[in-house]
Amino acid sequence: MHFGLEGSRSLHGMTSRTMLSKNTLKYLTSLGQKKYRDRHEVFVAEGPKLIQDLLDAGLEVEALYSTDLGVFSDVTADLISAAELKKISNQKSPNMAFAVFNRKTNTALKEEGLILALDSIQDPGNLGTIMRLADWFGVHHIVCTQQTADCYNPKVVQASMGSLARVQLHYLEDLPAWLAQTDLPVYGGFMQGDNVYQTALPQDAVLVMGNEGQGISQEASAVIDTKLSIPNFGMGQESLNVATATAVLLSEFKRSIEK
Amino acid sequence: MHFGLEGSRSLHGMTSRTMLSKNTLKYLTSLGQKKYRDRHEVFVAEGPKLIQDLLDAGLEVEALYSTDLGVFSDVTADLISAAELKKISNQKSPNMAFAVFNRKTNTALKEEGLILALDSIQDPGNLGTIMRLADWFGVHHIVCTQQTADCYNPKVVQASMGSLARVQLHYLEDLPAWLAQTDLPVYGGFMQGDNVYQTALPQDAVLVMGNEGQGISQEASAVIDTKLSIPNFGMGQESLNVATATAVLLSEFKRSIEK
Repeated sequence: MHFGLEGSRSLHGMTSRTMLSKNTLKYLTSLGQKKYRDRHEVFVAEGPKLIQDLLDAGLEVEALYSTDLGVFSDVTADLISAAELKKISNQKSPNMAFAVFNRKTNTALKEEGLILALDSIQDPGNLGTIMRLADWFGVHHIVCTQQTADCYNPKVVQASMGSLARVQLHYLEDLPAWLAQTDLPVYGGFMQGDNVYQTALPQDAVLVMGNEGQGISQEASAVIDTKLSIPNFGMGQESLNVATATAVLLSEFKRSIEK
Repeated sequence: MHFGLEGSRSLHGMTSRTMLSKNTLKYLTSLGQKKYRDRHEVFVAEGPKLIQDLLDAGLEVEALYSTDLGVFSDVTADLISAAELKKISNQKSPNMAFAVFNRKTNTALKEEGLILALDSIQDPGNLGTIMRLADWFGVHHIVCTQQTADCYNPKVVQASMGSLARVQLHYLEDLPAWLAQTDLPVYGGFMQGDNVYQTALPQDAVLVMGNEGQGISQEASAVIDTKLSIPNFGMGQESLNVATATAVLLSEFKRSIEK
């Protein structure tokens, strides 16, 4: 989908002040909603650092607005006012720049290496943090239920810190069925399970993490080969946040690899 | 400080509908600000689960309001309307109950076991998540700079999930000076450092974690004995969120203990 920028560019690459039209404003604010992001096959990222990271990762920018043209060196932004940025921003404290990116086409899911499976992670901040973790620990593919937060939700995009460009999410119709058919051994994070510190973990595997409140569903639990748990060394806390538990378990899968 | 509840209690433990007075409303909403929380030496917690956890941990409740009296069994709440709860709540989606707790008196900091040192963690969600992690991994004391978020900030209280009752924060005037004087070996989380997976870690130690944007300050770095880093197994992500990095490092300090 092509979307025309309305800033008038001069001949020498200089960009004059944009006045966002009503239609442009309407389009840009509509992208806060999944329905419109999906229809246009785009997502929004904000802030110079994140936008630059996504550009460096090779993602194609459809529209780029900034209140300060000095922050981007290789691309030309359209100048907007702070008031205009505030109108289109999804952030409490808008941070200079707003970009609309085209989505990458997902490559096929290869069933090798470590794959993360998310059984309905619903908090966008948690999903973004988990994508960033996956990226750090070399996990390229995440499979998940349809009930998992939208990876193009602005809060996910911001929390993933550019990892959206390198980690692919596959929203499956039936996660338990996929887990049942894979040849990879399937592990899951549980409150009660084998002590992860005393379990030998393979490099090729699936690690399932469950919903914030409900954990892993019964249907998915039924097809998990090994339940893993992180021992509790304290005296009262009943659970870990799912993103921090994912951090510990991904670390355990990878820590034996020489770096 | 004693604060009178204005609900009229009947003789049989039944509680009639409270109408929060203007002064009570003013007091309760003022507790969203550090100045007033400090003055009254209290903090606010919301939601039946968190409030029950804090009660179970022995914290003393000063005032308890709920839109549903059935959610607490051992304590009597004052009934308020959903509209009243919305007025006093610090949450986007208020969750039935609002409590004012007296603060616990800090016990003296014992320099033994694993102590976490926070060099200006500023995001309340990160601080709360780190307190929850500390609790899980058996860390009882956290020392931190004055620039660290307030542990009684409502966002910290909610994210810490009751750990506020078990983990003590000590806001130091001079964190680097404290690190310099302790007999414990001092470790820190850095982007560049010894591979944590190949480093033997003692049970008695201090682990320093740095600010979200700036990392550990130069002054603190200067008195750190061993810089630790988590290897990057990916291809592009430059950093981990500080709470997830703390999860991995605490896990490494504890994983060799038999459970």
